[in-house]
Amino acid sequence: MSRLLESYAAGRWFAAEDTGTPLMSAVDGSEVARISSTGLDVAGMVEYARTVGGPALRALTFHERAALLKQLGLTLMAGKDEFYRLSASTGATARDSAVDIDGGIGTVLSYASKARRELPNDTVYLDGAVEQLGKKGTFLGQHIYTPRHGVAVQINAFNFPVWGFLEKLAPAFVAGVPSIIKPASQTAYLTELVVRRIVETGILPEGSVQLISGSARDLLDHLGGQDSVAFTGSADTAALLRSHPSVLDDGVHFNAEADSLNASILGPDVTPDDPEFELFVKQLVSEMTVKAGQKCTAIRRALVPRTQMDAVIEATTARLAKIVVGNPDSEAVRMGALASLEQRDEVLRSVRGLTKSAQIVFGDPDRVEVVDADAATGAFLSPILLRADDRDANEPHEIEAFGPVSTVIGYDDTADAIELAARGKGSLVASVVTKDAGIAREIVLGLAPFHGRVLVLDSDDAKESTGHGSPLPVLVHGGPGRAGGGEELGGIRGVLHHMQRTAVQGSPEVLTAVGNTWFTGARRNHDGVHPFRKSLAELRIGDTIVGGPRQVTRADIDHFAEFTGDTFYAHTDPKAAAANPLFGGIVAHGYLVVSLAAGLFVDPAPGPVLANFGVDGLRFLTPVKAEDSLTVTLTAKKVTPRQSADYGEVRWDAVVTNQNYDPVATYDVLTLVAKEQSA
Amino acid sequence: MSRLLESYAAGRWFAAEDTGTPLMSAVDGSEVARISSTGLDVAGMVEYARTVGGPALRALTFHERAALLKQLGLTLMAGKDEFYRLSASTGATARDSAVDIDGGIGTVLSYASKARRELPNDTVYLDGAVEQLGKKGTFLGQHIYTPRHGVAVQINAFNFPVWGFLEKLAPAFVAGVPSIIKPASQTAYLTELVVRRIVETGILPEGSVQLISGSARDLLDHLGGQDSVAFTGSADTAALLRSHPSVLDDGVHFNAEADSLNASILGPDVTPDDPEFELFVKQLVSEMTVKAGQKCTAIRRALVPRTQMDAVIEATTARLAKIVVGNPDSEAVRMGALASLEQRDEVLRSVRGLTKSAQIVFGDPDRVEVVDADAATGAFLSPILLRADDRDANEPHEIEAFGPVSTVIGYDDTADAIELAARGKGSLVASVVTKDAGIAREIVLGLAPFHGRVLVLDSDDAKESTGHGSPLPVLVHGGPGRAGGGEELGGIRGVLHHMQRTAVQGSPEVLTAVGNTWFTGARRNHDGVHPFRKSLAELRIGDTIVGGPRQVTRADIDHFAEFTGDTFYAHTDPKAAAANPLFGGIVAHGYLVVSLAAGLFVDPAPGPVLANFGVDGLRFLTPVKAEDSLTVTLTAKKVTPRQSADYGEVRWDAVVTNQNYDPVATYDVLTLVAKEQSA
Repeated sequence: MSRLLESYAAGRWFAAEDTGTPLMSAVDGSEVARISSTGLDVAGMVEYARTVGGPALRALTFHERAALLKQLGLTLMAGKDEFYRLSASTGATARDSAVDIDGGIGTVLSYASKARRELPNDTVYLDGAVEQLGKKGTFLGQHIYTPRHGVAVQINAFNFPVWGFLEKLAPAFVAGVPSIIKPASQTAYLTELVVRRIVETGILPEGSVQLISGSARDLLDHLGGQDSVAFTGSADTAALLRSHPSVLDDGVHFNAEADSLNASILGPDVTPDDPEFELFVKQLVSEMTVKAGQKCTAIRRALVPRTQMDAVIEATTARLAKIVVGNPDSEAVRMGALASLEQRDEVLRSVRGLTKSAQIVFGDPDRVEVVDADAATGAFLSPILLRADDRDANEPHEIEAFGPVSTVIGYDDTADAIELAARGKGSLVASVVTKDAGIAREIVLGLAPFHGRVLVLDSDDAKESTGHGSPLPVLVHGGPGRAGGGEELGGIRGVLHHMQRTAVQGSPEVLTAVGNTWFTGARRNHDGVHPFRKSLAELRIGDTIVGGPRQVTRADIDHFAEFTGDTFYAHTDPKAAAANPLFGGIVAHGYLVVSLAAGLFVDPAPGPVLANFGVDGLRFLTPVKAEDSLTVTLTAKKVTPRQSADYGEVRWDAVVTNQNYDPVATYDVLTLVAKEQSA
Repeated sequence: MSRLLESYAAGRWFAAEDTGTPLMSAVDGSEVARISSTGLDVAGMVEYARTVGGPALRALTFHERAALLKQLGLTLMAGKDEFYRLSASTGATARDSAVDIDGGIGTVLSYASKARRELPNDTVYLDGAVEQLGKKGTFLGQHIYTPRHGVAVQINAFNFPVWGFLEKLAPAFVAGVPSIIKPASQTAYLTELVVRRIVETGILPEGSVQLISGSARDLLDHLGGQDSVAFTGSADTAALLRSHPSVLDDGVHFNAEADSLNASILGPDVTPDDPEFELFVKQLVSEMTVKAGQKCTAIRRALVPRTQMDAVIEATTARLAKIVVGNPDSEAVRMGALASLEQRDEVLRSVRGLTKSAQIVFGDPDRVEVVDADAATGAFLSPILLRADDRDANEPHEIEAFGPVSTVIGYDDTADAIELAARGKGSLVASVVTKDAGIAREIVLGLAPFHGRVLVLDSDDAKESTGHGSPLPVLVHGGPGRAGGGEELGGIRGVLHHMQRTAVQGSPEVLTAVGNTWFTGARRNHDGVHPFRKSLAELRIGDTIVGGPRQVTRADIDHFAEFTGDTFYAHTDPKAAAANPLFGGIVAHGYLVVSLAAGLFVDPAPGPVLANFGVDGLRFLTPVKAEDSLTVTLTAKKVTPRQSADYGEVRWDAVVTNQNYDPVATYDVLTLVAKEQSA
């Protein structure tokens, strides 16, 4: 008997009380493992996540969580060979496994990198700009994001046993929310292996990751308003989960990513002589055969100008004829098996449905030649291309064959192509192949409301294109309507889905304390020490230096114009400057103002401040005239120590005022500052 | 018989086929109007919104929609007196009506202003930064938002007949999505009047606003994945709507804002001698009595240190004793009637539930003294304050009396206060009254995951505070769990809820066409005319000027240090600069680099460019050493004509490179440019 997969629950590996259900190899029907969750205490897992995993994660900053993810990603990458070996049992070729395994680990590393670069080294994320809610500036509003105090439940599909859970785990982990992973049984042995390796590393805080091998039992009954369920799978199961009382009545956050009838559109400008024609056909064949078409993002509908239907079908079938089907371990094989015999039969049922209004132009549903395998015991299927001439038939827009199956449909013009694509009632992705940017614009904007992602393929980007079917960690994944109405990934967007956005109203002093960020109106510290002399360890939010006043003379303006070459008339020609509707006379250069301001706040001697690496949000508010006097106030606003360097970033609030206390310029100055004073 | 309210459907006012149901005055029980939607073609309304209203709105830019909203808001404000007169029949005092009427129109004006300032004068909104998806920069990703091609259905509660629909209409309108308004029957006469005035102005495009007076009939059956339902009301009705097949199976976007058990916390640091003590009590009384406590944001639970319970109750009852109840038209009256006798009875049932574990310390549920009205026919009720000494009782955290009712509950320490607040299972808002910023931080971050908004009240912000119960257009409104799990308002956030976010992948050229924004890598136009010589009418995205090279000498650096006073050692002291880990020798000032760059791209003579008003995202990437040569490339990136001025904003992409083509500095330059060449 094969090995019984275990669950990882409340800090221990758990073996079910019964012998479980056998899971069969997609390639030869042999038993790979058995699965069961009988006797598993899922309520205890939820409680463990809430009381152990959540608090441990929330004690870390975004950057600390990112550092752990990076370490985890590198460790998994180094040991990935055993994942590849086991992956072959799912029917996956080496290329298919790369999408799943390298794609999954790459997503973890991408999140580690994004979190370091785009989130603060803190536990609270500030969303958007501060809102001044009263005239005097004593009452402000700031949106913040804090992690939910619950668990992120991940219910995944069989087709991506590794990527499927890692792409959900990584954003939740960065957010500070623990995960319970529930893979589809069919390929759960691979998920179990990877989770086992993750647990063995000991890198992630205990309680941040748990695994259910087998049925989720009554897990959903134990969830509430601080918990979330992220589901990937069929639209029917999504609707079932969405109608669970915990979701309907108790506010469980539900996100679905469902299979959809994704379309690829060949632009009306493209003829068989254009390189874009081949790009379209090549991508179509690739999407039909990678993972044997078992991707929720695969192309189900190929929309082509009616006049090009024959040419497209001819070119596509020629390429499909070269696809070798068989044992994924075999060198020559380009397409492996479907995940199971049940899956194959399900696809065949869908193909029969499609043939009501379309005809098969490539492939035989009942026969496939296989290499190095037995077509009778493995879940093999030939790629199948169909042609739908009846534009008004519903089947091609409604029936999804979750395998190596696509239908070519003709369209009349771009508006027609957009309308046909929309008949999928919401899809994860669409692609457009055109050489005309204007056509791209028209089709992209027409498709956008119905899609989570739209790819435009042309000779310019073909070499670097990641393809129609590949969700990327930095781009959102999900789609409206039939595609589930959810959204995942998209860089930090995916992190924020696990957090609660809250508008905080209060005085500048209070917002400064809540957000670890200095807000205008809060107290400024003048302790007699120039803040540029303070290391990160010594610097406090609100530390301030006031420099000036310095008078700006007409001679300064003249000189600056001559020295820099910026002889714009508003700085040099009194008569023309007087006619300028905004200035009404000679004004100092904006760059002169900020240069002089730097002269007023910089402390010259070597010290912890290493460099000024940038300026953000500079606005010139009041023109500076000759004889005006400038004063600058520089206040430490945000401190971001780097995890893996002996320095960090300090953002300073800079305000330059004139002799009437009018603000002349406001901006943020960005500096790198050493963590400690050098010896 | 009173007037039968009409619906506004498909461009016509529609009167029901029957005589309808009478609606009674809250104050004296007299019949104000009748209501019915019998015979109303709601399917036709959905179709009209989709085919007439949607396309008309989508043809306008965000700024054009904003201009119409502004015009509408000003027109409604000028005619608001008749709204106030009718509002009294709902039981509202003049102060209550202001919250509803001025609050609603103010929200429209706020959205008009936000849209002009924070959205492009375009039909597509770009979300976040571009993502480079390949090493060579030929394949990019950009998230965009486009309006859904459906209708925004708004199902509102009886308590805010004006604000309730305007706060939902304004963001949808800015997004480009038409609305169907369905007010609660009880106060629908006021909604009908305001919608009638809106239609009469003719300002909004036909089809962008429709009204259902009476039952929504089978409206939801006709909605799909491009449509949304925004509901405000009870949690039970929210759960019912959420389980409708259109929502479960067809992807209708559903947003709920439900009544919740909002808490106000008196900080453990506040004693009766502090001004914060009075602020807490005053706010509590105000939240109990404004709108007779019929606000989904009102304070239902007053959490106070156990040691302060007696003092709080004493001070609160003293203030409550001064509240005059009666006819809202009467000068002396501070609290009017509840919306109906049914509402009053409902509140009394809830009070009876609360008394299972709490005792009434102010007010008599069965008796109230009223001024200028008849307590027997009007829906009057005394304010009722309860005291709950049993910390573990469930009633105070579960039963919401939707009227002038609050319960005082004692807590032990801040952690206990946070836990008690969280027992509301998710609320719209909480407030904290404290004089200690550290305590504010602790409580705010503890409350945040369970709340959509948290207000911190203290002597610093009390004068400008808008109060616990006031949602603001610029801040999000909604809350997790029991509060419905939805989110509205929040400035542009509320607009984006009506749009689909789509990741667009393509070449720089394609993204430039799609987003009307120049992306790095797209074609630059060098047509021989300096782009500063072009008006907005002549300027094209991608128009470019290259300036330089200019050599930076050591003398330039020395001189700039002396002239500006910026004598930072990295610019002046060779030995110290050599020891700097980032520079390894004397470097030019960053401000010198951008000043010289301006000298290289500026065109001096008067022309359409009026001013440089700012700089965004300036980053210094490579240190500039003496003898380096600088070249600057300035490219028109985004053009934003102003609706009501003869100029607009141009954002320029600026890249400064050295003689090795390394980027030295990148930034955006912001200029004001005239729409036309002056004569």
